[in-house]
Amino acid sequence: MRKIAVRLRARPVGMPQASDWDIREEEAAAPDEGEVLIAVRYVSVSPSIRNQMEAGGAYLPPLAIGDVARARAVGEVLESRSPAFAPGDHVEGLLGTQSHFTGSAAGLMKVDPNVAPLERYLGALGMTGFTAYFGMLDIGRPVSGETVVVSGAAGAVGSIAGQIARLKGCRVVGIAGGPAKCAHVVDDLGFDDCIDHLDERMGERLGEAAPRGVDIYFDNVGGKVLDEVLLHLALRARIPICGGIAHYNSIGAVGLKNHLKLLEMRGRMEGFSIYDYPTRHLEARDALAGWLADGSIVTREHIEDGLDRFPEALKLLFGGAQLGKLMVKV
Amino acid sequence: MRKIAVRLRARPVGMPQASDWDIREEEAAAPDEGEVLIAVRYVSVSPSIRNQMEAGGAYLPPLAIGDVARARAVGEVLESRSPAFAPGDHVEGLLGTQSHFTGSAAGLMKVDPNVAPLERYLGALGMTGFTAYFGMLDIGRPVSGETVVVSGAAGAVGSIAGQIARLKGCRVVGIAGGPAKCAHVVDDLGFDDCIDHLDERMGERLGEAAPRGVDIYFDNVGGKVLDEVLLHLALRARIPICGGIAHYNSIGAVGLKNHLKLLEMRGRMEGFSIYDYPTRHLEARDALAGWLADGSIVTREHIEDGLDRFPEALKLLFGGAQLGKLMVKV
Repeated sequence: MRKIAVRLRARPVGMPQASDWDIREEEAAAPDEGEVLIAVRYVSVSPSIRNQMEAGGAYLPPLAIGDVARARAVGEVLESRSPAFAPGDHVEGLLGTQSHFTGSAAGLMKVDPNVAPLERYLGALGMTGFTAYFGMLDIGRPVSGETVVVSGAAGAVGSIAGQIARLKGCRVVGIAGGPAKCAHVVDDLGFDDCIDHLDERMGERLGEAAPRGVDIYFDNVGGKVLDEVLLHLALRARIPICGGIAHYNSIGAVGLKNHLKLLEMRGRMEGFSIYDYPTRHLEARDALAGWLADGSIVTREHIEDGLDRFPEALKLLFGGAQLGKLMVKV
Repeated sequence: MRKIAVRLRARPVGMPQASDWDIREEEAAAPDEGEVLIAVRYVSVSPSIRNQMEAGGAYLPPLAIGDVARARAVGEVLESRSPAFAPGDHVEGLLGTQSHFTGSAAGLMKVDPNVAPLERYLGALGMTGFTAYFGMLDIGRPVSGETVVVSGAAGAVGSIAGQIARLKGCRVVGIAGGPAKCAHVVDDLGFDDCIDHLDERMGERLGEAAPRGVDIYFDNVGGKVLDEVLLHLALRARIPICGGIAHYNSIGAVGLKNHLKLLEMRGRMEGFSIYDYPTRHLEARDALAGWLADGSIVTREHIEDGLDRFPEALKLLFGGAQLGKLMVKV
């Protein structure tokens, strides 16, 4: 069977380019014992891709030149030599940037397209939603009445993290790039306020939006935004470090000058990973599905059509030109 | 009664100078109701003094020009209008940089010069020791077999923090400035290794000294040392932020470039204060007194003679020319 694969051609300098990728037609391998062959339907486009493109020193192990990127995706099992899956099953996993996946069935998770549209398992009902869920609830630990600031607030994880904090009775302030995104964050996602990080008055606006200080800062961006929020911490503030998009392309990635505010405020800055909660993914999915069903969380997907759109979609992601979870439809 | 007071004359630029202080003879006030008059015996010289000298943006509230610095000290009660203390009692508290303290008895702690020399209540048996105790045990949470790195390892807090981690069965690596201090840290304090932060090979030495990564980094300095240690974190590393001496004089205070290692390693960087453990100071004192008594912790004081030596002592502190707890004898 023929398949389409998106493979790394060159390591990027700064913003990734379409020319960093090869899109090839090639033969799909047949599954060995314990393996499955999957027709991929949707491929997640996430900041972690950028990290893999680096030769080293990055947050994730690097891809080799010629590799398919490690991307989460959803698809349908075509052939199975694993007792865990049968043809027709739908699954989510690290299927990569390709139209067909042949590989181990281990680590794949069954999903049900009758419960929610397949693409949602890459967004609110998948690792995106789980990241928001564990980062906010387990690392941030919101208490009703606290002030929570979320950067990347119009993005896939930030939009959900902020809404979870709202459900817990917090005042929630987003940070996003540009007036259109800020309007979306307040009007559509129900945040109490949203600050444009392109606004030179960002620091002043933070002081106004969080007059008693920031109890939780859910950070997706790092750089100067993190450094500014550090100046506004409340006593015993928590900072779940979810990402650092400013650092991935080395754009706006200033060094942190204000980390001693953690000392003054007895604050805590903490990295986390969904892979630290392997036994609780179903708990997160059930909670998120409930909130989606009763309308207490709204979510959005931005779907680009065709695997050949993957390089452009990655530019959209870092250009900040999309709302919600970005993916390509195969 | 006449007294000597050391009062702020000018705010420093960079390293504090003797000319930043006025040393005056003046009248000691008589105690009001609820107050005591204390003859101060030893005054602690600590990095927090430098912070208070700043006009703002610093870690502690600023002194006004003309103020006595808020320094911890030990002394003897001369007159008491508080039921809590009687003449002849010895106390520890924020008595300030002066030979006599008149003020509220609240916040003063009785100490016993028959149990330990009076000066030790400014060192291992006082806030210095408590800071090491709570920072290492409550924030760092050492587990036997882990690798612990301590900066400012020859200093008052660092020397004790490292020895506590040794008692808990950890491999302990100090970071200190210069070969003499490093020799003291290994030979006298019993650390397993010590790295000279003035050595350009610091990063390489860290990799050798902590081949399985750093589980706890007890940070007294911030700046480039913290940024380097971030590159060597082990999974689920803890970084108690105890101070940032590189930042106080704005010397070597680079911005942190490597905070995303917290994400990669699911690390935690956390500020703390002894004032967060008000009910547990006696627990800390008992534990530290036991370790001192059985020789499992050794401690050192560097005592300058005379309150007029206070400005020079502060320069010694930041010049790194002393070992152990620095204080002046009144």
